Amino acid sequence: MAAKASVADLTALEMRDRIASGALTAVELAHACIERVKERDDHVGAWAWFDADFVVAQAGSMDSYRKTGKPLGALHGVPVGLKDIIDTARIPTENGCPIDEGRIPENDAAVVEKLKSAGAIIFGKTVTTELAFMHPSATRNPAGPEHTPGGSSAGSAAAVAAGMVPLAVATQTGGSIIRPAAFCGVVGFKPSFGAVSRRGVLNQSPSLDTVGVFARNIGDTAFLGDTLFGSDPSDPATRPSPPPKLLDHAKSDPPVRPTFAFVRTPFWEAADDDTQAAFDELTALLGNQCFEIELPPIFADSQRIRETINLAEMAKSYARYLKLGRDSLSPTILGAIESGRGICAPDYIAALDWPKVFNAGLNEIFERCDAIITPSAPGAAPLGLETTGDPVFNGLWTLCGTPTVTIPVFEAENGMPMGVQIVGPKGQDGRLLRTARWLFERIGNGD
Amino acid sequence: MAAKASVADLTALEMRDRIASGALTAVELAHACIERVKERDDHVGAWAWFDADFVVAQAGSMDSYRKTGKPLGALHGVPVGLKDIIDTARIPTENGCPIDEGRIPENDAAVVEKLKSAGAIIFGKTVTTELAFMHPSATRNPAGPEHTPGGSSAGSAAAVAAGMVPLAVATQTGGSIIRPAAFCGVVGFKPSFGAVSRRGVLNQSPSLDTVGVFARNIGDTAFLGDTLFGSDPSDPATRPSPPPKLLDHAKSDPPVRPTFAFVRTPFWEAADDDTQAAFDELTALLGNQCFEIELPPIFADSQRIRETINLAEMAKSYARYLKLGRDSLSPTILGAIESGRGICAPDYIAALDWPKVFNAGLNEIFERCDAIITPSAPGAAPLGLETTGDPVFNGLWTLCGTPTVTIPVFEAENGMPMGVQIVGPKGQDGRLLRTARWLFERIGNGD
Repeated sequence: MAAKASVADLTALEMRDRIASGALTAVELAHACIERVKERDDHVGAWAWFDADFVVAQAGSMDSYRKTGKPLGALHGVPVGLKDIIDTARIPTENGCPIDEGRIPENDAAVVEKLKSAGAIIFGKTVTTELAFMHPSATRNPAGPEHTPGGSSAGSAAAVAAGMVPLAVATQTGGSIIRPAAFCGVVGFKPSFGAVSRRGVLNQSPSLDTVGVFARNIGDTAFLGDTLFGSDPSDPATRPSPPPKLLDHAKSDPPVRPTFAFVRTPFWEAADDDTQAAFDELTALLGNQCFEIELPPIFADSQRIRETINLAEMAKSYARYLKLGRDSLSPTILGAIESGRGICAPDYIAALDWPKVFNAGLNEIFERCDAIITPSAPGAAPLGLETTGDPVFNGLWTLCGTPTVTIPVFEAENGMPMGVQIVGPKGQDGRLLRTARWLFERIGNGD
Repeated sequence: MAAKASVADLTALEMRDRIASGALTAVELAHACIERVKERDDHVGAWAWFDADFVVAQAGSMDSYRKTGKPLGALHGVPVGLKDIIDTARIPTENGCPIDEGRIPENDAAVVEKLKSAGAIIFGKTVTTELAFMHPSATRNPAGPEHTPGGSSAGSAAAVAAGMVPLAVATQTGGSIIRPAAFCGVVGFKPSFGAVSRRGVLNQSPSLDTVGVFARNIGDTAFLGDTLFGSDPSDPATRPSPPPKLLDHAKSDPPVRPTFAFVRTPFWEAADDDTQAAFDELTALLGNQCFEIELPPIFADSQRIRETINLAEMAKSYARYLKLGRDSLSPTILGAIESGRGICAPDYIAALDWPKVFNAGLNEIFERCDAIITPSAPGAAPLGLETTGDPVFNGLWTLCGTPTVTIPVFEAENGMPMGVQIVGPKGQDGRLLRTARWLFERIGNGD
């Protein structure tokens, strides 16, 4: 997709700086982004709800506000896409589900409140798979329209990849950020579990659901993260903690050259030739900055354990959808809810003990490295829209609540983008982004 | 049981003061308590493990320590009984279960560490029902040997009631403190959920298990509570919080005469004539300090919800007992574990939502009163040892995590003791004990 030079291609940080200095108005930027949607969204289908007038109106009021001379929010005038499971007051939020057609929340989600306070433009609602689960959406991959963009945050990844918005906010319960980011060739960031409030976000699996970020580089990722992070009494997974200063961390240089642990995971046989070649290349490039380490065999159970938790909690969370309209649900999600109801409570409770065990194992690795590198997905985006691809390389990190980021630094034989997934110790999101930026600059073109 | 005048009948506070002043030695006190065991335990059977020499040895070393002139712990020389599901290093802890016969933990439970640091004498391990569940123990009620002492903390209640120890530490998951305390005619205190660490205590149902206290008056209850309360990173239900100063609270006078809400609960039809008469008397006595209020009908579900949580979690926690020796378990607990395995995970997860709803309802009541009064049990201890009695008046408060205390202020027609249960808002344990002391003094002989 050959890009016409446009302010829509600036980084979010550049957009913010130019608007703040007066070199660019929020309305000009809004029009450039809207232009991109008009040019490209017919072939992509990233948006579940989009209203150009609403975007221009917000941008206009941001420009008026700027003229008052009052201090500007961190994201003043920057367009942000929101996965359509994130509640927006007076804007439809349909959760990718016909049962929620026309649903208009009364209140903004916690992250939307934060974005609005920071002056961001709510650019629209991005397509999600049905109830943020596995049944594919109609969104296409901007890097190759015959390929899936991944899921469940399909529209968020595609909108950022297609240059329609510099930033999007989405969620991951299995692999719903990292996988589509890798497939579409953008940066995806799933923060530490509990870093971002989930108030007002569709509740699928409260032990796993994590709000995260799509962007085109690490700086922008950190920049958006700084606005989203923070505790919220109404999300018990969050804890009061000082501001994460992700951008400061991400911009700083590592005190020493970072060390990476290459972890194949017990799922390595799923990695295709492209992925295996990419990691051969990457580990060779890193040389003695990288050592390979095998996870203990018990980690093979992590997939089953994450699935047990996900399905059991989803069957509880989505019980109301079954009541409201079983016939409107896909066989995929009906089957999953049924599987969830088939899980007995003691097995579910036993599954909840495992993240602690796995984290103890990971922490031993993190004592010896700055971050783990591992595939973001088995390979590039599969052909066809019938599947969202395999999250096999994502579930463990969601289960463990470790922060993870994918950077688009490789290409498959067929030219489709591929990511490298970088995983850090829980709670060290800033350090992870710093390490990721270092790696992105070393092997890619990250800024 | 006519009491021979003995220092064993002093309050725990008096014991501590006399020992601290030198008017009494810990060894003299130990002998007086041991004497009580010798006189009475054949008819009671309160102790699962008891070694007089071990008690005297501890007391001797406390007396030697005192002579050094170093500062004394809060419970210096005071004997305390421990329910035999609380781990004691190098002392058998058999959980009332033949599978754990001869089990000797390596480490003390958190509460035992605290008791030892405070200079308490670990007097022995008190009988528990099988794995702290419903299958009765052989312990008899000191107030009437043909009657159950209740359960599961049978021995703790009986030991304190029989004057063998002034204090005991036990647990409640359904009604295992309040019910036996009421049946035996002592004070029982189940603190707010999360007030006391459960590290090293048999894990039955982590959403419900609560460590609490038996004593003969409110002052002693608060005194022991002050030593036990406190957060512990290894028990995630606990939270860092300032010292509760329970004794200071309990000794202080209420700023105004307290107001009580009389709550019959949806289970009132279980209350026998003795109980109904007692509450007629009590509410008449309190006059305009008491109003009656009905809980919304949904509270009737609290019993089913608490049971769902208890059985599901117990089936997980006790899975290892099934593996180790199904044949050594009672049909009662085997049936309960089977029921727990029959609960589907989404129903269990849904049950966990309810305490918040119930607490919202209770908080509306607590806005209008200092405490709720309600029966501690349907009536006095039933005849026979085949049952531990009905916890129907206890489960709601355990589920909600509200602090509750029973005071022995009534007698049934047959002369057996009966309690009044006083319930306070979550986290306000000190205020609850102050209100309870006020009521105990007003209608009983509490000191």
